[in-house]
Order: sequence, then structure tokens, then C-alpha cells
Amino acid sequence: MLDQTIKVDLSSTKKPKPDADKLQFGKLFTDHMFIMNYKEGQGWHDPRIVPYQPLKLDPSCVVFHYGQTVFEGMKAYVTKDGEVQLFRPNKNFERLNRSNDRLVIPQIDEEFALEALKKLVSIDKDWVPTAEGTSLYIRPFIIATQPYLGVAPSSEYMFIIIMSPVGAYYKEGLNPVKIQVEDEYVRTVKGGTGEAKTGGNYAASLKAQEISGEKGYSQVLWLDGKEHKYVEEVGSMNMFFKVDGKVITPALNGSILQGITRDSIIQLLKHWNVPVEERRISIEEIYEAAANGKLEEAFGTGTAAVISPVGELLWKNEKVVLNEGKTGEISKRLYDTLTGIQYGTEPDPFGWTVKVE
Amino acid sequence: MLDQTIKVDLSSTKKPKPDADKLQFGKLFTDHMFIMNYKEGQGWHDPRIVPYQPLKLDPSCVVFHYGQTVFEGMKAYVTKDGEVQLFRPNKNFERLNRSNDRLVIPQIDEEFALEALKKLVSIDKDWVPTAEGTSLYIRPFIIATQPYLGVAPSSEYMFIIIMSPVGAYYKEGLNPVKIQVEDEYVRTVKGGTGEAKTGGNYAASLKAQEISGEKGYSQVLWLDGKEHKYVEEVGSMNMFFKVDGKVITPALNGSILQGITRDSIIQLLKHWNVPVEERRISIEEIYEAAANGKLEEAFGTGTAAVISPVGELLWKNEKVVLNEGKTGEISKRLYDTLTGIQYGTEPDPFGWTVKVE
Repeated sequence: MLDQTIKVDLSSTKKPKPDADKLQFGKLFTDHMFIMNYKEGQGWHDPRIVPYQPLKLDPSCVVFHYGQTVFEGMKAYVTKDGEVQLFRPNKNFERLNRSNDRLVIPQIDEEFALEALKKLVSIDKDWVPTAEGTSLYIRPFIIATQPYLGVAPSSEYMFIIIMSPVGAYYKEGLNPVKIQVEDEYVRTVKGGTGEAKTGGNYAASLKAQEISGEKGYSQVLWLDGKEHKYVEEVGSMNMFFKVDGKVITPALNGSILQGITRDSIIQLLKHWNVPVEERRISIEEIYEAAANGKLEEAFGTGTAAVISPVGELLWKNEKVVLNEGKTGEISKRLYDTLTGIQYGTEPDPFGWTVKVE
Repeated sequence: MLDQTIKVDLSSTKKPKPDADKLQFGKLFTDHMFIMNYKEGQGWHDPRIVPYQPLKLDPSCVVFHYGQTVFEGMKAYVTKDGEVQLFRPNKNFERLNRSNDRLVIPQIDEEFALEALKKLVSIDKDWVPTAEGTSLYIRPFIIATQPYLGVAPSSEYMFIIIMSPVGAYYKEGLNPVKIQVEDEYVRTVKGGTGEAKTGGNYAASLKAQEISGEKGYSQVLWLDGKEHKYVEEVGSMNMFFKVDGKVITPALNGSILQGITRDSIIQLLKHWNVPVEERRISIEEIYEAAANGKLEEAFGTGTAAVISPVGELLWKNEKVVLNEGKTGEISKRLYDTLTGIQYGTEPDPFGWTVKVE
């Protein structure tokens, strides 16, 4: 880092802010964005907050051809006292650097990135919506911008943060979804990029998602790429089951994303003395538990939904309905507690929240 | 396709053309580019040839976050009569559409794409270099341009063709390379995107390439993602071996790119009555053949190098030197014949070349 001073160029006009009930995820962005450039030999430089604007990139830039890109997702919340806070943002920048390592992108200074993020949120503070369940979605990402068609790590990058106000994920309470267990397509495999938050994993997921969507299922449950036997993730979330009083989730194995919500949930369950296990889980085990009446709950976890209860599973034409298709007790308790911590209505015994200014 | 008329906006200035011996792959681009847009409900529209210029894209565009992008690579060659010709370009646009299908990108009109390409090459004809071994590299690609952070297929795309004059791949004759068999990282797996020409596959390859580069190996030989036992590709090329008088190459299995050079080589070998087999090949089989003195040649195949002879293999610290590290007979004959067809110095019994204008 040659110069850590963040230059600020404020927008002369302000976009109108939409009504809370009209907020759509990821379609409208705030007045400003953060940008920082990297060039080989020069390092990360020119950190700046500028009016939200298009990027001007040469058509030969590496990101358009070889997918060298990483991203993060997090949120800012308004508390009942009108303060704005972030949820474990340091974990996001730590993970961004792990993704960088896998994608051969230079490391960022995590502390500086958090400082830049706080400054950006503070400038666009009025954009953090205040209605119940709403938040400001934050998208830090890095793209490879060297204009060069060789298959090699780029010598230039841009680190950018954009922000979008989002509505309540659940407008009428937690809503269980139907998911299909994917047998043909895979998201990734050990030795691939599954642990990194990089575009290619998401591009790979679109086809299966489209096919299962046409059958009326809203998410795909991914099995491992090697044997198509073990549960990996659901959609772009981590997966949990409650079987016979115990909560189980696939262990981190190199192809599963190290979810921050996943980690928070494991910590919460331990704090509550609810038995929780991280281990390999076959889809057969889940179906056996269901047949024996021991599959009590299932849910996905991620930044967007926090908890996404599963009401129905479909695997090889065999359907399993969970908890009569209703949200389970532990799903609800986890959701209420985590969102309570995020919005400051519940105590934060773990020190997970970080105030902005 | 609403309107198939290609609008042409010629550049008022022409860039200087570099000396043939100073041409670098993929760094300098011609005066013009082809662009066509797609929008849901409207289809592909507004095909146009415009001066080569930067793209102006919203930072939330799908391609920056979820890697929804596909590409192709081909070349234009000047014949001894001064005519410009392409090599099997229809195969590239067929494959682009197969990649589109895997990445949930709308199909393009292949015939129209070829017409657009010919028009673009014809306009920038002076950019096709004439020195021996030089050519004009052509990069058609599609990027997802909807400004939306939801993980879903984009509703907007750009199809772009850019072109770059490239020098001779081998300046002093065919040059065998040292390759390392990769044990830890994988490029892809069955059910993934390996068969598609999409950014994520290339992004996934950078880390292993970097590590083996540091050890002095110029390419990585990829094994299958499931068992790490079977040969898949080398770098971004298809892989061939000559064992005991027979040429073998991994069969297309869903995770191997359907190379156009690969297909041309198989056809040429059959034409010559050289035994050729497409089948599963374990790396153990190759090492056994080497131990028994039956591994005669090995080479990668692709658009850039055509044939890339392998002089040395390293797998689990065990080194194998092939053909005394020199280019083998069949590698040389394939290279001479294929490049001869491409440059019009050899007859083209397969009708592979397509004249521009």
C-alpha cells in the first residue's frame, strides 16, 4: 500500500431512495462506491470513494475471458437506536483474501478494507433502510483488469465495493422452500475452486438451478463432485439438518464455502448446548433418517436469507416432507437470535457486531 | 434476430502496425471490433462493427460477480497468394453455442456470426500479418451484462469479437516443453463446466500453473477430478500420446474440452492410416509404457501452438524423458500438415479452410 489516504469525491446529485416495500435485492445501488487499483510493481494504490458509475474496461481484460474474480457479501443494519452496524465484517475480508490466494489475486490489507468500507457506509448512511427486516447489502469484489488474452494471472486488478438497499427476505415470516437433490450437475469438486467465493462456482450452478426451477423447486442441493453421495451445499448456502435432536452440517472439506453465517450458527448452537456435529453426511443417511421419522428439520444458511428452512426434499423422484412443510423450532430460534444480534435487539455475547462511526 | 444488417462505423484513425518480430500474443488489437447485444424479450440485436474501444459496464454486471461468460479462439491466415482464410470457423461457433447452453446463455445464429466475423476480418485485413508462422488471433466472447446481483442467468448479454495479430509460436522450430502432472488441484470434474469454454475453468487453473511454473515446468497435466488417475488435458490443450506405434488421446467424457485441433488431428491420423484411439488413459499406463520403452511421443494440441511436443513428464517426483527430449516424428508431421493446410501450402482434402471475401 503506497498511500492509505482515501480520496473522497462526493456525488453532486443524490438518487431518490425507493419505498421500503419496493426494495429489490441487488438492483438499485447507493450514490457512491469505493475503488482501489492494483498494478504489478506498484501494489494496491489510489483508494477512493467516487460517485457510483460505470467501469470503462478494455474488451481484452482478463475478467471477461478467464473469470479471474472474487467477491464477498455482507450487510449493514440500522439498530433501534438509529446506529448502523456490520456483522463480522473482518471475517468477510479474511475470506476474500483466502479466495484471492486460490485465484492468484494479490492479497488486500484487511484492516484497511474495513476502514474503507466503514467510510463508504458512513457517507451513504441514509441509504441503510430502516423498515423491519431491511438492510444495506454490501458487495466487495475484485476483478482482473489487465488487457491481455494470455492465460495467466492478471498484472492489474480493481477492488470495488458497491452497496444496495434490500427489502425483508421474509415478508410474511420464515417460509420453507422445496429443494431438489442434484444428481447430474455438480458445483465443484475437491481440488477445484469450491472453497473460494469466485464467479466460476456460480456460473457452474446456473444450469441445474434452471432445470430444477422449471420443475417447481426453488433451490438445488449439491452433492459432492466425486461420488455424488455426500451433501455439500444448497443453492449458494451452507446446509444443516436436525436429526434425532442433533444438528449436523457437512464438514469443511475443501469444496464447501466457509460460510460466516454457518460459523455463527455452529457457535450459537454450542452456546445453547445443542449438540452440533460437522462431518460427512450422505444423502442416503438423510433419507434413512426421514424414513425412520428422525429427520426433524433442515435449513440453508447464508447472508441473504440468514436461515432458509427446507420444507421438502426431492431425490431421484423420492419426496420427503419435513416437519409438515413448516418452519422448525431450531430454525426459528436461530433466525430470531441471529437477526436479533444483527439488528441490535438481542445481546451480542460474541462481539460479532461492529459499529459504523 | 430482429435485424441482421451489420452497421459499420469505421475508425477515423488507424493504429500503427508492429513489426512481425515484435508481435506478442493477445496484447495489441486491430482497429475494429464486432458487437451485438441481447436483451430478454428482444433477442440478439444491433449487430455492429465499431472502432476498437473500451466497454462501459455497470459495476453490478453479472459477469463481474458470477462468471457467466463463454469464449472461442481461432485464427486467420494469409496464404502465399495473399488470400486470407479461416480454419474450421463453423466448429468454433458450434462449440460456442454448446458452451452457451451449459452456461444458460442464449444461443447465437452461427451462420450470422460467421458472416459478421468475415466482415470484420475483411475490414481489418491489413492486420493479418504475413511473415512466416504469424497469424491474426480471433477472440469471440459473450459476457453477461445485466446490472443485477441475484444469482440467476443474466437477462442481457454482449457478443463481441476482437482480433490480435500474433507472432510465430515457434520461432526456432518445434520446441518440446516440460510438464508436471498435477496431483492436488483439478481443473474441473464430470457434471461441472469442463466441456464448456468458460472463464471459470481457466480461473481454476491459475494456481496449479503458478506452482508448477515456479518449479520450472511450463504446463500442468490435469488428471480427472474424481480419482486423480486419468489424463484429461494439458494446460489449456488436449493431450495425445504415441505408445507402441498407436496414437491415443483421452475420450470426450464430459469434462474435457472438445478441441477443434484435437478433432482435426484424429481425422488426419485416420486419413494416414495411423492407428488412433480415443479412450480413458490412466497416468499409470503412461508411466508403465515409458518404463517398458514404449512411450514414443506425447503432445498437446490447441489453436495457439497447434502441436506442443512434450519432452519431459514429472509425476510424484518421478521424471520421464520422452524421445530424448526432442520433437517426435508424428508430432512434426502433424504440425507441418496442419499448419500447411492453414496457410494454404498443403492441399485441404477435408475442406477445412474458409476464404474471407
